[in-house]
Amino acid sequence: MSAAPIDFYFDFSSPYGYVASRLAADIERSTGRALRWRPVLLGAIFKTTGQAPLTEVPLKGDYSRRDFARTARLHKVEYRHPDPFPVGTVAACRAFYALDAIDPQAARRLAEALFLAFFRDNRDISTASGVLAIAKEAHLDGEALARSIEDPAVKDRTRRAVEEAIAAGVFGSPYFIADGEPFWGVDRIPMLESWVRSGGW
Amino acid sequence: MSAAPIDFYFDFSSPYGYVASRLAADIERSTGRALRWRPVLLGAIFKTTGQAPLTEVPLKGDYSRRDFARTARLHKVEYRHPDPFPVGTVAACRAFYALDAIDPQAARRLAEALFLAFFRDNRDISTASGVLAIAKEAHLDGEALARSIEDPAVKDRTRRAVEEAIAAGVFGSPYFIADGEPFWGVDRIPMLESWVRSGGW
Repeated sequence: MSAAPIDFYFDFSSPYGYVASRLAADIERSTGRALRWRPVLLGAIFKTTGQAPLTEVPLKGDYSRRDFARTARLHKVEYRHPDPFPVGTVAACRAFYALDAIDPQAARRLAEALFLAFFRDNRDISTASGVLAIAKEAHLDGEALARSIEDPAVKDRTRRAVEEAIAAGVFGSPYFIADGEPFWGVDRIPMLESWVRSGGW
Repeated sequence: MSAAPIDFYFDFSSPYGYVASRLAADIERSTGRALRWRPVLLGAIFKTTGQAPLTEVPLKGDYSRRDFARTARLHKVEYRHPDPFPVGTVAACRAFYALDAIDPQAARRLAEALFLAFFRDNRDISTASGVLAIAKEAHLDGEALARSIEDPAVKDRTRRAVEEAIAAGVFGSPYFIADGEPFWGVDRIPMLESWVRSGGW
């Protein structure tokens, strides 16, 4: 995978972001490109766009609640709608970016574990203690991580990552950017793959 | 096509609704079901959902402007972004429902002509005179249509059609309902087709 990576933006509390995370290896295989995982905070993004969480929008909320599980089934991804939902993902994001600066592969392992914990096992990922418990089970250094997520430098890095995503135009989850071309939604994964393979149309 | 038709909701000013209209015959072929064309007024729907036109949402607006033409190219549909955009489509809707009560095939012909006029030829479909000029070119009875769209019964029928769409959960364009199962967006046409052919999953 020598060409530029594809940026993969998501919120840890996004069902479609979770489904996309389960398809990440397929996307990498089919495009020959690595994904660069970039968790974001949809709450901050919605302040910029004036949008509301999907499930809070009349009509669209009903549709999306039905569609989460249906989309997961289509892609053969295990899914149990978590309760409570949605949840804050600042702690999860900080843990990710703390690790990402040192070892992106470990950060990705943590991200996969957090997604599965929330959307398959209905576990708490909204608190530092919830995130650290899951990190330990994924054989990551929980003690170091506990210190890191309180580190002002990590908080700054997380904030900057979200600001950079907004500057790049990210308004939803999942959101992919390949060679400057944006693709929003699980629905657009085939379009992303086709675009990257063909060089656009 | 003996099974129940698939409801196909759209707004005449919706780029994705237009692209879906150009794929309508393909959908009918692939599912073995007729589409029942149901134009709606997104302005009225957005009052229910609290949403704004796509192009007015920060970040999402930029994405969608880029995506309209890209999506059209993907589906080999001619597309020129109209100016002004979006436009009101009450006159177009009334003309459609005036015809639909008498001859659904003629109403569909009008709908196809209106979509092409707006999204391929950048013509005015926002006024009664614009709609009637296009209807005449499509060999429809423009004089009868001119009287009909001022008919209070047709205005009522149009209002009811939009209310029924909202009651059915329609919040965007295109929106399909097959055997009670909803599918929103051009992106979801493959999912709609797969669902109908397989009986769901």
